[in-house]
Amino acid sequence: MAEIPVLQNILEANEAMAAQVRSRLERAGVVALNFIGAPGAGKTSLLEQTLPRLHGRLSVAVIEADCATARDAGRIKALGIEVVQINTGTGCHVPAHLVLQALDRLPLERIQLLIIENVGNLVCPAELDIGESGKIAVISVAEGDDKPQKYPMLFRQCCAVVLNKVDLIPHTDFRRERFEGDLRTINADVPLFGVSCRTGEGVDAWVNWLIGQTTAR
Amino acid sequence: MAEIPVLQNILEANEAMAAQVRSRLERAGVVALNFIGAPGAGKTSLLEQTLPRLHGRLSVAVIEADCATARDAGRIKALGIEVVQINTGTGCHVPAHLVLQALDRLPLERIQLLIIENVGNLVCPAELDIGESGKIAVISVAEGDDKPQKYPMLFRQCCAVVLNKVDLIPHTDFRRERFEGDLRTINADVPLFGVSCRTGEGVDAWVNWLIGQTTAR
Repeated sequence: MAEIPVLQNILEANEAMAAQVRSRLERAGVVALNFIGAPGAGKTSLLEQTLPRLHGRLSVAVIEADCATARDAGRIKALGIEVVQINTGTGCHVPAHLVLQALDRLPLERIQLLIIENVGNLVCPAELDIGESGKIAVISVAEGDDKPQKYPMLFRQCCAVVLNKVDLIPHTDFRRERFEGDLRTINADVPLFGVSCRTGEGVDAWVNWLIGQTTAR
Repeated sequence: MAEIPVLQNILEANEAMAAQVRSRLERAGVVALNFIGAPGAGKTSLLEQTLPRLHGRLSVAVIEADCATARDAGRIKALGIEVVQINTGTGCHVPAHLVLQALDRLPLERIQLLIIENVGNLVCPAELDIGESGKIAVISVAEGDDKPQKYPMLFRQCCAVVLNKVDLIPHTDFRRERFEGDLRTINADVPLFGVSCRTGEGVDAWVNWLIGQTTAR
């Protein structure tokens, strides 16, 4: 059983880096939200719906993380938003030391909200502190209504849940009341936003909550 | 940079266990396939469609892995199939030593095919040898057509790709030719099966390929 001390060494190194990230963000007055969800949950699509609605209300920058390609960063840049792409290679999450490096490339003094879109993964990023103010769980209707109890770490720790692709509900076996019941056994009070990034349904309520997060702090 | 030697220690320990798994399976003449895909890709649904079609043609057992709950094992057991559930807790993949333990609970001498349904995760399980004969990538239409290049490790290494939820194509922006183009840049020759576990479309072709894998070896 050599694994446990080994993993703790990595975690301790990460925690020290996360503390540095947090301290730099706090000094600059930046709220950082870490968007976590499975591949294809629609994290980038959610940003494409969200960022234009923040224009003139909140200054934002984005860190995109993927194993490979700069596709998502390209989509964000096309909106005129400052973005840094992190490629993790075989890494299943973005570690704090890469976030720290990314901060050097961003105009922290000019932004209020930093969005970190993590690698598509419902498991590994959920446990790791990267110096963020909070974690946002993004899940799609197409993933099924049984996910909160099967992947409890993220749903327990997040400060909001975005249920994306609600336009697909009529075409799937997804039952919203079953999803909510499942979620509430894990996290009784977390705000839940049902949205469709295809139709724009529900996005305004989510954006208003998001703006509230930066003014509340 | 303490991380690299540390990760190698874990990987070396895992490799030794994977070799033991492989050796036991080979002695028993069992082909083992490791099903990998994001949460909600439909891995368990694919098994629910596949296992009844194998009845009388191939004797099968299943290892289910999830962070928490025995929900998926319950679905397999309901089909009358031998199943062992592994709960990984915060673990993002099933390691070889847990597969080795699961083998003790299965009648290896009576089965020809062992299906291991990994934790829902497109990244971490892709790199890890657990003693399997091959990896099967399961991806859903709802995840989008841009995933092979963004998550190349699995798509490079797998011996087949199952594209699930093709019944959702008319309700999404998914373009099959774009998905195939993306996949072919990563893996030119891997067999690709488009299926719908809701309608049963395409499942027979997949099942015939699967049976061929056990007779070819």
